[in-house]
Amino acid sequence: MSSADLPFKTISVVGLGLIGGSIALAVRERWPAMRITGVDRKAVLAHALGGGAIDRAVDSAADACEADLIVLAAPVRQNLKLLGEVAQRLPATTVVTDVGSTKRGIVDAAAALACTSFVGGHPIGGAEQGGFGFARPDLFRHRPWIFTPSASTPAPALERLFEFARGVGARPSTMSADDHDRVMAFLSHLPQLTASALMEIIGSSAGHHALRLAGRGLVDTTRLASSPAETWRDVCATNDDAIGQALDVLIARLSELRADLRGGDTVNRVFTDAARWRAELMSGRD
Amino acid sequence: MSSADLPFKTISVVGLGLIGGSIALAVRERWPAMRITGVDRKAVLAHALGGGAIDRAVDSAADACEADLIVLAAPVRQNLKLLGEVAQRLPATTVVTDVGSTKRGIVDAAAALACTSFVGGHPIGGAEQGGFGFARPDLFRHRPWIFTPSASTPAPALERLFEFARGVGARPSTMSADDHDRVMAFLSHLPQLTASALMEIIGSSAGHHALRLAGRGLVDTTRLASSPAETWRDVCATNDDAIGQALDVLIARLSELRADLRGGDTVNRVFTDAARWRAELMSGRD
Repeated sequence: MSSADLPFKTISVVGLGLIGGSIALAVRERWPAMRITGVDRKAVLAHALGGGAIDRAVDSAADACEADLIVLAAPVRQNLKLLGEVAQRLPATTVVTDVGSTKRGIVDAAAALACTSFVGGHPIGGAEQGGFGFARPDLFRHRPWIFTPSASTPAPALERLFEFARGVGARPSTMSADDHDRVMAFLSHLPQLTASALMEIIGSSAGHHALRLAGRGLVDTTRLASSPAETWRDVCATNDDAIGQALDVLIARLSELRADLRGGDTVNRVFTDAARWRAELMSGRD
Repeated sequence: MSSADLPFKTISVVGLGLIGGSIALAVRERWPAMRITGVDRKAVLAHALGGGAIDRAVDSAADACEADLIVLAAPVRQNLKLLGEVAQRLPATTVVTDVGSTKRGIVDAAAALACTSFVGGHPIGGAEQGGFGFARPDLFRHRPWIFTPSASTPAPALERLFEFARGVGARPSTMSADDHDRVMAFLSHLPQLTASALMEIIGSSAGHHALRLAGRGLVDTTRLASSPAETWRDVCATNDDAIGQALDVLIARLSELRADLRGGDTVNRVFTDAARWRAELMSGRD
């Protein structure tokens, strides 16, 4: 592929964790000619440079602005700060996106900065464990990648981001930041909070000794509970209204179940509907 | 192996679903000389006979009492009825056990019937889908199998059940029925109810279209949501007090999280503890 076919000739990835690191690896695999700059702590950069995942390592986002695409891949609230740092230094043709799990905060911040080069993004990949050590080039394959353009987003910027996302195997689509945050409160943030709350109370109530009696059901239901607190603190703080509403619905349903454990009609109804939705969830997957 | 080495020479399995069917298959594999009688609906019996999983098919538990071991493997409340049917017809040396997810109800019923041949049991296997079609001989391998003997349980009966459980690859242990039900309310029943409630409200709130945006996290967290309503209606009805207490703890924790989404201290504490308990859960596993 000639460099004319690249959606971007140069890319800076700010934050080489699971997502940022996987983006670097996926770019390297798909477009070997694309020049990749990484921003992270020194040890992570050394790891990434050593493995050939990036071409250049720099200390700060401000030094990584000379690129056709900048991807902010730090935790959500750090991305907000990083956007402020890069917004004033951007070349006119540079596109900026992020990979955070909530979108209203950073889309609003970009509007406040009049940074029309920014298009919010959310690749829905994820894996059990975070960090560059778990990054892999196929993390986005066949997975949704949502972009949240605003009215001022230039059409070519969005088109190039779609091309980029498709290039690494993802299925790009668009939503408003509002819709994204409301839908993700249910699809992603609620299951995460529930899995963590469940693991915490089961551990502290049943205790170490009893955990050896757990079946595979508990193992699957709590897989998300190894997610890092820092990441989710940011997600909760930047989507608290939508997550609060989702939690209210869950608490209400658990309370209904609790009130009818012996009667069983509620158990019957919830389980029957749940099995149907579960089948729908699975039928749409590869 | 000579037949003298068999823990039981003949076994009747009442209910050839996932668990009962897997017991038949595991017995067949481990002790080809053990004679297996199955009790279920005609179509299931035909399937089990055809595949060689059982030697003899009968219509009712009452006709299956001539065995060294009777395993009641129907849903929990059906097992209660079945115990009543077999209790009066038992040969003196026959041992009866069950495989239900709650133990107080059936242990109390056995006491009321003065059926000292009965020892409650709970093999912790489980799989995504129920029914004989999903049964497999290795379902119990390396998995706990809890027995809940009472003061009147003859020691040899328990010893033979331990030998049986070990023979099919499981790790037998004992608990009181009270302890079992309280611990399982947290380890098993609460995750099940939560997974089903979560899937039901996510499906009905986010809708069919949004489910295609779900990540692997939701898929894992809701795996249990395909469990059959009938099974869990029985579990909830026979362990309602302990499950109710577990639900109260979860509802309280979710409410605490909800009240501090923006502040984040509760999120931080719960996630940090959850990740530690999750590591403990996984460290004890093969």
